[in-house]
Amino acid sequence: MRERTWPLETLKKYLVIPSVSAQGTGIKEACRFLKTLFTSLGLTAKVIDCGGNPICYAELIVNKKLPTILFYNHYDVQPPEPLEKWISPPFKPTVRGGKLFARGSSDNKGNLIARIAAVKSFLDTCPTVRPDEPFGRGHPRQNDSVGLAVRREGEKPPVNVKFVVDGEEEIGSPTLPRFISKYREMIKADMCIWESGGRDEKDNPDLALGCKGICHAELVARGAKDDLHSSKGVIVKNPAWRLIWALNSLKDSNENILIDGFYNRVRKPGSLDRKTIAKFMFYEKEKKKEWGINSFLAGLTGLKLKERFFYEPALNIDGLTSGYQGKGHKTVLPKQASAKIDFRLVPDMTPKDVLNRLRKHLDRYGFSDIEIHDFRGYPPARTPLTSPYVNIISKAQERVYKKPVMVEPLFAASGPMYLFTPLMPCFSLGVGYSGSSIHAPNENIRLTDYWMGIECIKEIMNELAMPAGR
Amino acid sequence: MRERTWPLETLKKYLVIPSVSAQGTGIKEACRFLKTLFTSLGLTAKVIDCGGNPICYAELIVNKKLPTILFYNHYDVQPPEPLEKWISPPFKPTVRGGKLFARGSSDNKGNLIARIAAVKSFLDTCPTVRPDEPFGRGHPRQNDSVGLAVRREGEKPPVNVKFVVDGEEEIGSPTLPRFISKYREMIKADMCIWESGGRDEKDNPDLALGCKGICHAELVARGAKDDLHSSKGVIVKNPAWRLIWALNSLKDSNENILIDGFYNRVRKPGSLDRKTIAKFMFYEKEKKKEWGINSFLAGLTGLKLKERFFYEPALNIDGLTSGYQGKGHKTVLPKQASAKIDFRLVPDMTPKDVLNRLRKHLDRYGFSDIEIHDFRGYPPARTPLTSPYVNIISKAQERVYKKPVMVEPLFAASGPMYLFTPLMPCFSLGVGYSGSSIHAPNENIRLTDYWMGIECIKEIMNELAMPAGR
Repeated sequence: MRERTWPLETLKKYLVIPSVSAQGTGIKEACRFLKTLFTSLGLTAKVIDCGGNPICYAELIVNKKLPTILFYNHYDVQPPEPLEKWISPPFKPTVRGGKLFARGSSDNKGNLIARIAAVKSFLDTCPTVRPDEPFGRGHPRQNDSVGLAVRREGEKPPVNVKFVVDGEEEIGSPTLPRFISKYREMIKADMCIWESGGRDEKDNPDLALGCKGICHAELVARGAKDDLHSSKGVIVKNPAWRLIWALNSLKDSNENILIDGFYNRVRKPGSLDRKTIAKFMFYEKEKKKEWGINSFLAGLTGLKLKERFFYEPALNIDGLTSGYQGKGHKTVLPKQASAKIDFRLVPDMTPKDVLNRLRKHLDRYGFSDIEIHDFRGYPPARTPLTSPYVNIISKAQERVYKKPVMVEPLFAASGPMYLFTPLMPCFSLGVGYSGSSIHAPNENIRLTDYWMGIECIKEIMNELAMPAGR
Repeated sequence: MRERTWPLETLKKYLVIPSVSAQGTGIKEACRFLKTLFTSLGLTAKVIDCGGNPICYAELIVNKKLPTILFYNHYDVQPPEPLEKWISPPFKPTVRGGKLFARGSSDNKGNLIARIAAVKSFLDTCPTVRPDEPFGRGHPRQNDSVGLAVRREGEKPPVNVKFVVDGEEEIGSPTLPRFISKYREMIKADMCIWESGGRDEKDNPDLALGCKGICHAELVARGAKDDLHSSKGVIVKNPAWRLIWALNSLKDSNENILIDGFYNRVRKPGSLDRKTIAKFMFYEKEKKKEWGINSFLAGLTGLKLKERFFYEPALNIDGLTSGYQGKGHKTVLPKQASAKIDFRLVPDMTPKDVLNRLRKHLDRYGFSDIEIHDFRGYPPARTPLTSPYVNIISKAQERVYKKPVMVEPLFAASGPMYLFTPLMPCFSLGVGYSGSSIHAPNENIRLTDYWMGIECIKEIMNELAMPAGR
């Protein structure tokens, strides 16, 4: 009985760890947990320190002649704030209505444990992955034989597996480049299953072939050395106004980013891109309802909306902070104002170029006083749509989910995939769904997706082991 | 001994009360304290409820034929945040280096107790106001006879006195209009000593004849129903951007307020105004050093700077709030963004007109989605520079301070003086100084100013009692 609930119980134990990289909590604990977990299953595991939060690496080499899958995941999670919006505490995994709620359940702890569970199922001598009710009542596969754990019990994995578990993905993976350059040989593989993904509003599974790049920064404006009485605002610089004007100079109210040359490197979608996103279902009505909005930016719909979503860069404000934020009113001239911003980059933009242009822009428009702090990020990455693995993986997905696979040429969110795409093709898929609320309160996964996600990885492993042209 | 330290000990007891109107704390306690205090000295005192925080009223009618002074003060104080910036806790009055630190020490509790102490000195049969070292070592008056308590001990006050102590000054005195209209007869007086004031960088005492008006508001922009992952910012409205663009439309980076007709009612300074501010010493170098700034807005200096300070309206940002404000970075598309703003108004602007124009402006420039919350405020007020009391009061100040009096036609800060100027001339002076840090951390007064402030009120009372043309 204990064995049959292993994937869920293990995930819950992992979710309890508050491994928030932005806040520096739970890092050591998460590494220890993962090393113990991998080792207990018979994998070789190490915690590797490259200067930042350590990276947990594990591998199982069955036979050097077999294909090798590299799994990229991360053990760090986004800050859980605002805490008051969580129905159950973010680090107390809670099942409600067939869903598991916790920070990291979807992004990205659920995916890692699902992948480990898939590997484990090959190693076990008895069925381990099959839960009591894997798909819930009424599911089309309810009466089927459930996955490989049943059919192939006791078999060794049909492929070699490697796991890289990053500890800084949510803060831009600053240490990962050093790790990759040092351990390039060690992590060598035929392809990489990227951290996350899931199912859309109609339960179609997605398969993403790339990531937008990202840069974070904090813009800071300073005024007097202390907060002053606001009556002095008529003759003393207000940093909040300086920040407003500087931000306004960066993007107009039609969402055009005004930084000179910002769009220069943006690669326009080609014909295969257009064909792919034409097939991609973007459920506008459902998304609007879910997000509580009346329309998308600039009133876009259809192909134009999808093009913007997948192929356009963006400049987002993540946070604004200045002066008095308490109840009521306080007439204060703040000493400081700051904005946390992020840029989303598409091929072939680079963070370095964006930073240069941002600084030049601020200086040129009279905002030399605006400081850029904590700038970091990474470029976008893409696996070509022509990769043969696209077919192999989507076949496996279709067998498990019985639904068409939605291929995304470029995932709108970001990850350090650019470090891996020069080494191997990368494919992102996972156990999330459209209501997973990643990076937001009440992050969750559906348990049925979790069980199917485990099975899907097993199918991919088997598929990859087949001789070509099967 | 206990008697001689009365003004300081009483003030300390008053400062302990955290009567923050914006946060609704300590209100009842402050009223109770004041009523007990006034009553114990033989004044008639009442706590009057007009719907909001009660107003404490007290009076001592010596003889109906004598002139009457009305003192306007307020028992509420600004929020103490940011708490971590206070060297000693804001509600634990602490003397360091001849200064008394506490929220409200300058604005406005020190002034009220100084005024009560002046009245008390006339009532006492022994010297009560003279402290052990009233002016400190090296002060020019150290060896003088100290004030009226010595010279006129046991005398009844030479004028009638009335006290109105507001409980909502720091939140715009919303209830005071009702009080004034109901108790117009009761508060009748020949002139009003307004709440506060002090001494400038060279220790010259100031005398202000008016207040700028003020309106507060909170501007709120809303986006999706919850915080979303920031990757969605490329297709979903970001309320932080909406707020930035809306604020930017209100004021350009040359500090011009762009609201149509905003300056229409601004009364230009006349020749007596110009003469008065020409005499007014504005210690630019000292102010820049104290505030930690390199220059004033738009590089203004001299008369132009003073004109701007006294005669121009302003639009200040008091606070900005949106999204993630914690440590590090969180890639979030915030569901809401808000700005606390205040307008400073000069004659003959009105809050109602400003609100109308603000709403019209936002609508006209495409910001109908920006909500205006919690709009309130009051118009500016002025006592004519030609009032005969200007001379009477400044003579009294000069006798106490041995320094020229700096007459300010209009105080840059705000207060509900507009309710009183139609009834009687109002004059603002007090126990603060240029380093008082009102509305900021480490608010304080110098004890020497406190003792001299008490004496100054006594001099004014005596001066007023003299037959004209003395």
